[in-house]
Order: sequence, then structure tokens, then C-alpha cells
Amino acid sequence: MSRILLSHGAGGREMAALIDEVFLARYGDPNRVGDDSATVLLGSHRLAFTTDSYVVDPLFFPGGDIGRLAVAGTVNDLLTAAARPLVLSASFILEEGLEIAVLQTIAESMRETAAEAGVAIVTGDTKVVPKGSADKVFITTAGVGLVLRPGVSGAAARPGDEIILTGTVGDHGMAVLLTREKLLDGEAIMSDAAPLTGLVLNLLEEGVKIHAMRDPTRGGIASALNEIARQSQVAMEIIEARVPVAPAVAAACEALGLDVFQVANEGKMLIIVAPEDAAKALFIIRRSPYGEAARVIGQVSAAPAGRVTVKTVIGTTRLLDPPSGDLLPRIC
Amino acid sequence: MSRILLSHGAGGREMAALIDEVFLARYGDPNRVGDDSATVLLGSHRLAFTTDSYVVDPLFFPGGDIGRLAVAGTVNDLLTAAARPLVLSASFILEEGLEIAVLQTIAESMRETAAEAGVAIVTGDTKVVPKGSADKVFITTAGVGLVLRPGVSGAAARPGDEIILTGTVGDHGMAVLLTREKLLDGEAIMSDAAPLTGLVLNLLEEGVKIHAMRDPTRGGIASALNEIARQSQVAMEIIEARVPVAPAVAAACEALGLDVFQVANEGKMLIIVAPEDAAKALFIIRRSPYGEAARVIGQVSAAPAGRVTVKTVIGTTRLLDPPSGDLLPRIC
Repeated sequence: MSRILLSHGAGGREMAALIDEVFLARYGDPNRVGDDSATVLLGSHRLAFTTDSYVVDPLFFPGGDIGRLAVAGTVNDLLTAAARPLVLSASFILEEGLEIAVLQTIAESMRETAAEAGVAIVTGDTKVVPKGSADKVFITTAGVGLVLRPGVSGAAARPGDEIILTGTVGDHGMAVLLTREKLLDGEAIMSDAAPLTGLVLNLLEEGVKIHAMRDPTRGGIASALNEIARQSQVAMEIIEARVPVAPAVAAACEALGLDVFQVANEGKMLIIVAPEDAAKALFIIRRSPYGEAARVIGQVSAAPAGRVTVKTVIGTTRLLDPPSGDLLPRIC
Repeated sequence: MSRILLSHGAGGREMAALIDEVFLARYGDPNRVGDDSATVLLGSHRLAFTTDSYVVDPLFFPGGDIGRLAVAGTVNDLLTAAARPLVLSASFILEEGLEIAVLQTIAESMRETAAEAGVAIVTGDTKVVPKGSADKVFITTAGVGLVLRPGVSGAAARPGDEIILTGTVGDHGMAVLLTREKLLDGEAIMSDAAPLTGLVLNLLEEGVKIHAMRDPTRGGIASALNEIARQSQVAMEIIEARVPVAPAVAAACEALGLDVFQVANEGKMLIIVAPEDAAKALFIIRRSPYGEAARVIGQVSAAPAGRVTVKTVIGTTRLLDPPSGDLLPRIC
């Protein structure tokens, strides 16, 4: 491995290896657990801090655009730390020649999504590169939140916990892919890009015993579940028949030979809760417009540590490996 | 103005207009003053929060590289808010095909610069785009700091204040430009890219009455001084003969027809102090390895508000306008 491949950005094994080798080897500290947000103690407050770059192609797709994605993605990463999102930064890399009207539309979408998410965009930057040195617009957002409940982490799932998924999987990745490649009837599938502030804060305010949360973006629920299983040193089994998939998404994945469990979502959360609180959690989640299709999709068990399995619709059990190889490029 | 031009990223008039029209019209709040860092109150603490993207070409140049720049630039922006830099995020947009060894070298430079600056890189992201959709590596850093002294702002300069510059101007921009264009003897000019944590924290710890700080990056001291004069509604006069310029930088600017006051710096600070503290400030700044050539370069006066003038070496006075038009692209 001597050159960067598309798979290094795809959210699977190769990306994890690159991050370990290049970045964590240098910046990692023994307390780091691999969550989407870092947390930092400041006096009596614990802050959550996270960043993501967005390079999605095309910029606009059914259900969203790069601006909505950039705000929702960073807000959702703060939420995984059980934090109330407070402020965002937004930095733009623009290609010379971009229509300013396009930038206006994106900025407006960010404003609307930030208002929906309850955060303020308070600082930013703009760089322009010559035509051909970037593709239209790249956006990097960072976010700061206030941790409301310490200890919620991908490393805190426990045997016996229930695994809740807040809705259907695969919508975002398929909406972008079908639009970009002009495949099938792209219009039938809408991205789920959405900030989940209300959904998650409701759970925290009502005292639900959440142990871990992760938004299943690049690499889909396959990546997210494997990460949590590894961080927490637990096993997980999910029941395929319980994972909600929209019929159009299922059909498109089958036609293209894609595993829907590996396809990106941008408005879903995996929430690992204590078993006694699963019913209460589901009740609260389903009150949110983004959680109406929430289901318990599986359970956490003690061993073998790090293994995720799927009980298939025909009753067999298969390993759910983290994805590998060229997944879908520029999906977020 | 219907398309993005290189000048929209150059730090001058066009960039200010774009930011006003596209972003501040939507996210601006009445309390915003146009500083490089936003500040946010959190309980009894005031946080500083900032972000910048780095698209410098070439990635490596005499005196630095994109990684050193990305850490130092964000640290210096936090310092302008009189904040102790605490944590950084780093998000990478990588072009497919980039040599991983190049990324390793950049990551190592970031580690070293962060250690020098006293900050931890605690969170990040990696995206990969297909070959031709970006140019090698773009880095976006964001930073959070703890404001040590509220009220230090580009809006707080007062008539009578002294204007201190911590060293020579134009080094960074000319080092990058000469290397990229293979002009003159590029090796003779080194970028000044450096984190100024020690220099600024010394001043704050010793109680120097700092009113405003700004690091004169894109658009050079011409942009930075005009911004402060406008924000504070004061006039400024600087004495050309007092502004330190390295002979090689002066010669290169003259040969290329560039105004050295408009050329970017990445390891300098403009510090506006109460007149009674100017001597003390200079004494402290000169103890820092990055402040040995510090000078008082001018004074703040009451009127005309927003005007910056230069007393030239031949005794005349000229307006120092904010730069406009195509400056140097991809300098940071």
C-alpha cells in the first residue's frame, strides 16, 4: 500500500488501517476509544468536538444536498457523544468558475438545516482553487457540543443490551449513486439526510439508559456495528428481517449487487440501550418524525468479542464483516 | 459577479464581499464583529472557535509545508481572541493516487507543530476523491481555545494605541510563490509559518493591555490593518521605514511588482496595545524566538474612521487600501 486508493475513504477496512497507521500512530492517546466525537474536559463541563469533510457528487440529490449533509453529519456525530450540539464552523473549498447561485443555494440549505438542528454556524473560511484543482465545492464542518451524559461511547455496549435502529437503511447512498450514475429510477429514492437533535435529546432528557450511539454513514450499519463490537469487545447479532429497508432501495441494491447493510445513511442512528429501557426508548424515538420506523434489530452478547452476525431471513447465520474494497466513492 | 473567481479566495475586497453576501447575510448575528475566531459562552467559560482550509501549492516549500501551516494558522487564529489553544480537529481531502509517504510526512509535521503550539489533535476525518477531482491534499483544521481575556477583538483598537508587528513581512507568500513558479532564487526565502502560542500567552500572562490582535495572512498587513480600522472605526498610520522586510523578500517583490504589505504571512502577529504598555510588550515579544525583529510600526488615531495610511520612506503619505483583484492563489 503505497498510494491512496478510493477505498481509503470508503469507511471500511482500508480506511481504518490508513487512519491507524498515519494519524493515530501520531496523535492517538491511550484514552482514545474510536468514537466519532472527541470529548474534552473544560472546568466542570465536558465538550464534544468533531469534524467531517463533505465531497459528495452530485451536489444536489433527491432529499438533500451537500449543505444539508454537512450540517446534519456533524450534528449527528456530536449527538453520538450524548452531547447537545452548540456551534458549527463551515469551511468551503471552491473551484474557480463555480456559479455563485449554486453557493447561495447551498448556504441557504445549511442555514435551514442548522435552524432545524438547533445549532449556530459561527465561524468559517473560504478558499478558491483554480479550475480543475477541485470539483465545484467541498465543505468541511466542525462542531462543538456540551456532553449531557458522560460515558455514552462505542466502547460502552454491554452484553444483554438491545440494538435499536431508528429507521430504514441504504436510502442516502442509493439516492446519491442512482442520481450520479443516472441509473434506474433515481427519483424514487430520497436521501434520509437529517439532523437527529430532537430524537436523541428526547431520549437523554427522559433518562433512557443509552450505552452507545453511532450514525451509520460510510460503510453503513456493517461498519458501525463492527466498530462498536470491536470497541466494546462484545458480540452482536442482528435479525435481517427486522432491519427496515424501503422496497425501492432493496430492489436497487439487488439490481446493482450491493449489500444494503454497507450502504451509507445520513439521518439514522444505531442506539444501544439497556434491555429494561428498550421499549421506552422505542416509544420515544417513534414520536420523532425521523424515528417512526424505528425497530429493535438485534442484541449484544458477551462473546466472541468483536464478532457481528446476521440471522438471515432463511434462518441461517452469517458473519457481517466490515466492508472492504472500493465501495461507493463520494457518497458524502 | 455570477461565478467564483480566484480573487474570491484571496483575502481582499472580493472575498469580503462574497462572505458578506453569501454567508453573513444568512448566519451573521448582530454581535458578530468580523474576528478570525468566534467566541461562545459556556457556563463561566468563554470558548474561542475557528476553522481554516489549506490548499497551498506546492505542499512543501522552504520553511514549512501544508501540515505546519494548517496547525499554525488555526492556532494563531485562536490566539487573536486572547485564547489559550486547547484542541484541534484535522480533516483531509485526498486525491486518489497520492503517495502515502507524502501523507505520512505531512501528518508528522502536524504532530511536531501541534506539540510546539501546545495543542492536541483530537479528532479528524479522511475523504478520498477520484484522481483529477482535487489536487493532492487539502486540509481543514478547526480549533477550540479558552479565552483568557475577554474583549480582545479587532473591534477594540482605540485612538492613541500603538501598532506592534512581531517581525518581517512577506516571507511566507514569497517563499510559496517563488517555489511554485520556480522564479528567482526561491531557496533564499523561507516561509515564517509558526504557531505563536508562547509569544502571545507571555503577553497575556504578564498583563499587557492588548486591545486587538490579528495574524496578517492572506492579503498581508494591508488586509489585516484595514479590517481592524473598519471594525474599530479608527484611523491608522504606519511608518513604512519601520516595517521589517527581509532584503531578499523586498527584492523579489520589487522584481515581480508586488506590494509586500499585501503578501501573506503565517507566523506574524499585529498587536494593538495601549500606549503605556508598548515598551513592555516589545520587550516581552522580543524574548520569543518568533518575535526578535518586533517593532512598533505605527499608531491608531481617531479619524478618519476606517482609513489606513502609510508614511513613505520619502516622507509622503499614501493610502493603504485593502488589496483587490487576483492576488496570489493557493498561498495557504
